[in-house]
Amino acid sequence: MKEILAIVRLNKMNQTKRALAEVGLPSITARDALGRGKGIVDLQLLKGAERGYEEAISQLGQSQRLIPKRAILIVVPDELVGRTVKTIIKVNQTGKSGDGMIFVTPCLEAVRVRTGERGDAVLDDI
Amino acid sequence: MKEILAIVRLNKMNQTKRALAEVGLPSITARDALGRGKGIVDLQLLKGAERGYEEAISQLGQSQRLIPKRAILIVVPDELVGRTVKTIIKVNQTGKSGDGMIFVTPCLEAVRVRTGERGDAVLDDI
Amino acid sequence: MKEILAIVRLNKMNQTKRALAEVGLPSITARDALGRGKGIVDLQLLKGAERGYEEAISQLGQSQRLIPKRAILIVVPDELVGRTVKTIIKVNQTGKSGDGMIFVTPCLEAVRVRTGERGDAVLDDI
Repeated sequence: MKEILAIVRLNKMNQTKRALAEVGLPSITARDALGRGKGIVDLQLLKGAERGYEEAISQLGQSQRLIPKRAILIVVPDELVGRTVKTIIKVNQTGKSGDGMIFVTPCLEAVRVRTGERGDAVLDDI
Repeated sequence: MKEILAIVRLNKMNQTKRALAEVGLPSITARDALGRGKGIVDLQLLKGAERGYEEAISQLGQSQRLIPKRAILIVVPDELVGRTVKTIIKVNQTGKSGDGMIFVTPCLEAVRVRTGERGDAVLDDI
Repeated sequence: MKEILAIVRLNKMNQTKRALAEVGLPSITARDALGRGKGIVDLQLLKGAERGYEEAISQLGQSQRLIPKRAILIVVPDELVGRTVKTIIKVNQTGKSGDGMIFVTPCLEAVRVRTGERGDAVLDDI
């Protein structure tokens, strides 16, 4: 099974939730997060800082505000990773900087606390 | 070592914290989270949506409020995974829907910032 | 690629952000978190609890307040793990208890939602 972490825009949360439920993935965990992507960093400044210009260095980190984002965590069986990623992209892709990122990490075990059951069976499998 | 993420009820937080400390696992990180399990989804609705009934689809995601939960993160040596999972289940199992989930993922390295030390030694090992 | 989770002091957030940007790692996700390390647990109490002294057990978990912390998540190509960890330590190491922890976990895939691109190319690689 895999753990999928998606960092998306706040206002895309409900749509994402609904789209995931529609493809049979209702179990999610959401969290507030603050994100900063590459896009909102002044690359000019960064290059300057890399070359050691003190003025550029001193300005680094100033303009780069962390933007409120929503973090969605969903654990799915291996065969549903593609469907999950595709669904999240479909809903969240506006083409503008700040659309977010999706990270896929391995997950060794899932346990449903209520019953103590383990394995793929406790994940969404409708 | 393994990273253990438990999504539990808000009001079970203190008890879980205490139970983990009692079995020698005092180091945890907790976060607010919003969770939605399979249990609170109207399956009838979902099946309808799967079959393409527009009415069912339009209602999907409406009733499925995200419930405030607490996310507990704890990193433990491999040999303590069983004890940790068992302890969390023991405290959080009410038998009712919403008891939460536990996910176990691999963790390659842990570093204590204060000393720069690495490996199992920086985890709880009492 | 690897997912690096750092739990650091609230007041070190901006400095960490800036230091990471300076070494070419501007893309981060930050979250509020509550942490509790080993250091603020009364070991005497814990040993007593282990030996079954009821008084010690009853006091466990009482004094162990969770401290507000900041959780920083950053996903980097394998070859940048060392630089990232070193940078976080450099900024956050005060030598006092509560400096925080860094955890390194495997990450199988990263997807940029805006373009659908995958792999190391979507991570910081300046």
